[in-house]
Amino acid sequence: MSRPYARLTPIPQEAVQFGSGFWGERQKRNRAAIPKLFAALREHGVLDNFKRVNDPSIERQGPRFTDSDLYKWLEAACLSLPDPQLEPLVAEVSSLIQAAQGQDGYLNTYFVHQKAAQRFSNLQSDHELYCGGHLIEAAIAHWQATGKEDLLQAAVRFADYIVSQFGPGKIEQACGHPEIELALVKLYRATGREQYLELAGYFLKRVPLRKLQELSGHAVRAAYYASGLADVYLETGEQDYLDCLQRQWKSMVEEKIYLTGGLGGRVRDESVGRPFELPLEGAYAETCAAIGNIFWNSRMLSISGEGRFADLIERILYNGFLAGVSLSADKYFYENPLAYNGKPYWDPWYPWMRRDSYERKLWHDCTCCPPNVQRLLASLGGYFYSASQEGLWVHLYDRSELKWQLDGVPVHLVQKCDYPWDGKLSFEIRLPERHEFSLFLRLPFWAEEYKLLVDGIACTAKERNGYLELRRQWRDNKVELNLSLPIVPMEANPRAAETRDSVALMRGPLVYCLEQADNLNLEILEARLNLAEKFATEPSGELGGIVKLKASGKVPAEPYGPLYRPLGSKVERLKPVQLTFIPYYAWNNRGSGAMTVWLKRT
Amino acid sequence: MSRPYARLTPIPQEAVQFGSGFWGERQKRNRAAIPKLFAALREHGVLDNFKRVNDPSIERQGPRFTDSDLYKWLEAACLSLPDPQLEPLVAEVSSLIQAAQGQDGYLNTYFVHQKAAQRFSNLQSDHELYCGGHLIEAAIAHWQATGKEDLLQAAVRFADYIVSQFGPGKIEQACGHPEIELALVKLYRATGREQYLELAGYFLKRVPLRKLQELSGHAVRAAYYASGLADVYLETGEQDYLDCLQRQWKSMVEEKIYLTGGLGGRVRDESVGRPFELPLEGAYAETCAAIGNIFWNSRMLSISGEGRFADLIERILYNGFLAGVSLSADKYFYENPLAYNGKPYWDPWYPWMRRDSYERKLWHDCTCCPPNVQRLLASLGGYFYSASQEGLWVHLYDRSELKWQLDGVPVHLVQKCDYPWDGKLSFEIRLPERHEFSLFLRLPFWAEEYKLLVDGIACTAKERNGYLELRRQWRDNKVELNLSLPIVPMEANPRAAETRDSVALMRGPLVYCLEQADNLNLEILEARLNLAEKFATEPSGELGGIVKLKASGKVPAEPYGPLYRPLGSKVERLKPVQLTFIPYYAWNNRGSGAMTVWLKRT
Repeated sequence: MSRPYARLTPIPQEAVQFGSGFWGERQKRNRAAIPKLFAALREHGVLDNFKRVNDPSIERQGPRFTDSDLYKWLEAACLSLPDPQLEPLVAEVSSLIQAAQGQDGYLNTYFVHQKAAQRFSNLQSDHELYCGGHLIEAAIAHWQATGKEDLLQAAVRFADYIVSQFGPGKIEQACGHPEIELALVKLYRATGREQYLELAGYFLKRVPLRKLQELSGHAVRAAYYASGLADVYLETGEQDYLDCLQRQWKSMVEEKIYLTGGLGGRVRDESVGRPFELPLEGAYAETCAAIGNIFWNSRMLSISGEGRFADLIERILYNGFLAGVSLSADKYFYENPLAYNGKPYWDPWYPWMRRDSYERKLWHDCTCCPPNVQRLLASLGGYFYSASQEGLWVHLYDRSELKWQLDGVPVHLVQKCDYPWDGKLSFEIRLPERHEFSLFLRLPFWAEEYKLLVDGIACTAKERNGYLELRRQWRDNKVELNLSLPIVPMEANPRAAETRDSVALMRGPLVYCLEQADNLNLEILEARLNLAEKFATEPSGELGGIVKLKASGKVPAEPYGPLYRPLGSKVERLKPVQLTFIPYYAWNNRGSGAMTVWLKRT
Repeated sequence: MSRPYARLTPIPQEAVQFGSGFWGERQKRNRAAIPKLFAALREHGVLDNFKRVNDPSIERQGPRFTDSDLYKWLEAACLSLPDPQLEPLVAEVSSLIQAAQGQDGYLNTYFVHQKAAQRFSNLQSDHELYCGGHLIEAAIAHWQATGKEDLLQAAVRFADYIVSQFGPGKIEQACGHPEIELALVKLYRATGREQYLELAGYFLKRVPLRKLQELSGHAVRAAYYASGLADVYLETGEQDYLDCLQRQWKSMVEEKIYLTGGLGGRVRDESVGRPFELPLEGAYAETCAAIGNIFWNSRMLSISGEGRFADLIERILYNGFLAGVSLSADKYFYENPLAYNGKPYWDPWYPWMRRDSYERKLWHDCTCCPPNVQRLLASLGGYFYSASQEGLWVHLYDRSELKWQLDGVPVHLVQKCDYPWDGKLSFEIRLPERHEFSLFLRLPFWAEEYKLLVDGIACTAKERNGYLELRRQWRDNKVELNLSLPIVPMEANPRAAETRDSVALMRGPLVYCLEQADNLNLEILEARLNLAEKFATEPSGELGGIVKLKASGKVPAEPYGPLYRPLGSKVERLKPVQLTFIPYYAWNNRGSGAMTVWLKRT
């Protein structure tokens, strides 16, 4: 796997086995949800669309990009193999896809029959290359999981076809929705064929890089584009690409991301919006954008070896991403607001917009997010570790086992912890022989204090770009890292209008929220947090086992009246209340009640 | 003109002549803009659409509801007659419309030829009755202005046709966009034919009134619906209707309106949104929604005689409505944000969304707002006065002359003032004989102090529902009302997240804003207002003659850094600055710079 400009090379998910920890449990439930989503895709005609290519009597169903939903599902299923329930489904889908491919290599179930002439006629909107990118990613996962080359060959035929159609002097355009770029780089790495890398670079030039000053526009597209840009940078080292990535990342973290790591504040075009355009109840923060942002940051981490990218991956994973899926792992949000008033919203003029409650569901008519969640959870092990010439890097913490090799020496690493509820982490290292390398443990930005022990003896370590570097001859050793997990009230840049003079609680990587179910008979959107009194933790068996937070606060003792009034014309009377917080990701699992991440201070 | 359940009967605009005051100048410029909009409508094929009904070779242009844009333009032109430049245009359009009407009375330029069979097939989206409503309103204005009955008869034929098609046992649906209801009531008042009132009542039943607890959904539709509901109430006195109107009005003023009187915070479906969903930079606040809200409040005022409705009309007029049109009166905003960062926004994934700057323009592809602005400004005199059994009501203030009759006695009222810049108002009353009645002068809610003189002698008056009542035998008298015009910092209910802990300056009816042009080299969206120091007024000849406000404030001395940080981890350094405010309506007339209505306090 080529990555000449990588400082760190990710260790693939196959090398990582989760235990019964936080993510292990989620991956197990995710695996059980994969057949459910398959049944829903079948029920909604997504499989029939493929059959229709050879049987025009079948009606096409779903949006024009829905082929990609099946490809993403297939990728998730392949990443979860071996699994006796999934294997026949994978085989069925793989055959279905191959049977639908044209002689020339083209494959899209929308642009066939009477629409065949419209092939590549509206690249801005038609998502044909976007779908093709997901075909390629699924085919690579299929090949890696099963060893079978047939689907990979289909993807290669598709890729060869677009190589023949696109480029200077051919079709000189790119797909409106980036995705093909990162898929082509993956295919280049799988096959070594440089034409795929070249075409990816060509497609990236659709946008003049120097115009990309801030991160803007459709959030998912922006994140996928940046991921493709980073992938090509990792192969070519073009400085322009890296400059652009760093500019856009800075714009994101200084002006355009939610505390939860959610991306895309604007409903209009599902986009990132203007600087500080971060509405809370109105947040879009599409689940797919959180996923795309994990993709992007994992590439930035590979390029730089800097912990701030892994910090952000962790922030997104535990919050903006994880809120997109129910605790049961089979219901999904498309949008992830940071506050909700718990009341139905009824638009008398668009009766189909009636929303009696806001709840996760298995099926969305635009079902891009559910299979994206499934493939991310199935591939999660791949985000935990990297290797470099210097040694082994641990980015994320959960009960897990890693089996890998460094310089030809097998390395077995066992993580034991109750993270993120507890900051005590242990790493058992076993090697067949003594071997010198550095073990890099990410020191999260929120960990104000920590203790480090090797084989029970306290020690110090160099802090390097957000990592603790332990260099020594390793054989059978135990490293312990005890991170402090204080409850930290966070504030935001006052230019972000909705969070102005407000505060949100974090503990470790978790952003907390108030939900109605824990705070009955309280107008939680009116609640203020009392910063003068101490916060407390309260372990709870609820919601799959969480640590709740307790705090004191106040709520208005009477209605405010009209929206606006002369300043100071009335003193607001407040009454004291007790507040109970749960992790943001866990909201909306006990019915659809009010919720808020940010509270006014008192 | 029937209105049995009216406390106040509006005095029509024909009886009011503006002088060279605030609104008189605007009405004059508006009249000059009417031929410009006509030329643009012609250029964009809106007139050709009507010719196309008899000539299928002509291509249809614009959205399916664009017939209504010509009707609204015609209404504005008729309200501005006599005018030698407008008369031939009015005659041309009137003939064009009549020639396009079907034998059966149906009239819509979209559902003809190959689309004729789709007539009334998708009432939710097709706007046929919405267009028909504007045909009726234009026809009544044409008849009133010219005395010619031909276009009115065409409208009657249309109305008779829909009476024959809609109702129990016929088509049992209503148009998705309310408008036909208030038009049918107007036609009922013009013709006395009860079937129009009945059909209006039937259409209103599309929505179960008891479900309308809060004001919600598409802002323009909600306001037009409420206006129709109020119109039918004024004729029938159904208590359910009034209860619903009051509930929705309370929901609006307590939870859902901008300080500027703008309505509709949500881009999604151009809708009012959830309670307190009032983004500032992201405000939708469509100009048409401000206009619809003026319609609604003028009917509430007629029903109740309560000054709070006239207060709101004034608030909307001077702010949320007036910001929708340039000082030159020939360029228009569709959306009216309450803050703007002055920077182009570029969406690389939707290149057509590129917006190099945000500026008013004459032509919008969806051109509902411009002719709506024109007809509102042309009809503005009709919002100034009402009559009741008790006497004469003055709701709005501007240099103007009223000629009307009370109990058969001619009343001549001359308003002299420099409002809204100065609070000194004078009213010269001339009658041919002594006559007893009450003169009601609205006492705006923001006028903390006032002085009242009759013929130079200080006097007191009863305050009744927001009006000062002066009852006496009038002949030739002069009433003077001197309103205090303090600069008032306003605050908002903290549930409105974006205005939390912020302040906006008002003076009289005017909401003020900071604009870049007056505050060069200042990050105005970062500015805080210093409430400890005095504000000052500064009359200026700029921007058509305004009073600017001066205040002291602070801005951050250094960049904030990342969006989020632990509370109190860094003390923000601020530096003092001078701030200059202009009325919100006047922004964006000196290029497209940053602007904000709300400022954080310091």
